Amino acid sequence: MKGMKAFEPDEATDDEVAQEAAAFGPLAQAVRELADAALRTRVDPADARAATDEIEALTARLRADQLPGSYGVRRRPDGRGRPWGNAVIGLRNPIAPPLAPVAEADRVVADFDLGAVYEGPPGLVHGGVVSLILDQMLGQAAGARGRPGMTGTLTIVYRQATPLGPLRAEAWIERAEGIKTWARGHVIGPDGVTAEADGVFILPRWARKLIEERGPDAPTPAYYE
Amino acid sequence: MKGMKAFEPDEATDDEVAQEAAAFGPLAQAVRELADAALRTRVDPADARAATDEIEALTARLRADQLPGSYGVRRRPDGRGRPWGNAVIGLRNPIAPPLAPVAEADRVVADFDLGAVYEGPPGLVHGGVVSLILDQMLGQAAGARGRPGMTGTLTIVYRQATPLGPLRAEAWIERAEGIKTWARGHVIGPDGVTAEADGVFILPRWARKLIEERGPDAPTPAYYE
Repeated sequence: MKGMKAFEPDEATDDEVAQEAAAFGPLAQAVRELADAALRTRVDPADARAATDEIEALTARLRADQLPGSYGVRRRPDGRGRPWGNAVIGLRNPIAPPLAPVAEADRVVADFDLGAVYEGPPGLVHGGVVSLILDQMLGQAAGARGRPGMTGTLTIVYRQATPLGPLRAEAWIERAEGIKTWARGHVIGPDGVTAEADGVFILPRWARKLIEERGPDAPTPAYYE
Repeated sequence: MKGMKAFEPDEATDDEVAQEAAAFGPLAQAVRELADAALRTRVDPADARAATDEIEALTARLRADQLPGSYGVRRRPDGRGRPWGNAVIGLRNPIAPPLAPVAEADRVVADFDLGAVYEGPPGLVHGGVVSLILDQMLGQAAGARGRPGMTGTLTIVYRQATPLGPLRAEAWIERAEGIKTWARGHVIGPDGVTAEADGVFILPRWARKLIEERGPDAPTPAYYE
């Protein structure tokens, strides 16, 4: 896997990080709700046009001072990552549900709820959204064990349709060898497992270097998305 | 693949469809821009809070009259689908880029641009977003040949990182047998193919019934997302 850059160092203090989360987390959440409403609304076309104008004005205000490119992944001095722009778990990313994966005994687990914007077939989660979430979860499982990686291969087997609504995803490491980590996981709906995934994750060059310098037992960045 | 419902019939006239597209397509586009701005903005926390309040008020106005559930996939009397809520190609879905796949000689092709909200590793498209797009494209390739299907299995091989920015995706059918269709595809970035996919798509029960009733050569819904 070529092309991966190291994390950008994160020089924000804990206070600044907390302040950013408190102001910009709710902003992203408000845009998530707006996205759902914009898709499902049945107001008159004239009302939709008026709303569009107001949204464009809001966007212009927010763009008055903005990052020149994407959000990236900031890395705290203690090694923790701050992947707030991530398309699946990003606190500041309005298209992310966002997932909040938690490390349990031998796995990483996330409970979440997918609404109308994640639809594929009527009433069902888009098959590609299922793969999006599983890719993130398998990567998290690898990262949680100090084996951050870029996806090398990913295979999804769809067992049954995944309904919109409350869901759970779980992922764990099967084995690791050299720069490769094999991970597995699944999504669980109200009627059991809906899709299973397995993937190979490749340790990026910068992480190999870090592990060489610090030794294999030192913590590596937990987030690698 | 269980659990798939048939399309909802679409009773809108051509005029009504055109009017809905003209008013609600730009609304979704405005929310896409707002999502990008909300992620990248560096305005003061107080300004972010003010914007959040205004967005919440807008959402309440749009929710005053809304669909009780998800958008679904409307089916026109001529068999064409209207998948405007789809997470990848949905005209009305703010989290969809949206892709606009075009049928060419032997394949389906889409040119698109992915910005900050689709990020995984710094500057790169999230690996799961790559799989999301490829799942849709392979499904489109199957549907374009009258073989709509739910994803049965999907395998992605990542060859190199996919940078944010302008990209192309292509997909085509390898073969079809009974209720199964095998499709392949890839994403192309500035340095060539970044990821390859192959998948098996399963004809849903309602489509099998339709094909039985109408004969194998009659058109089936082109969209099946």
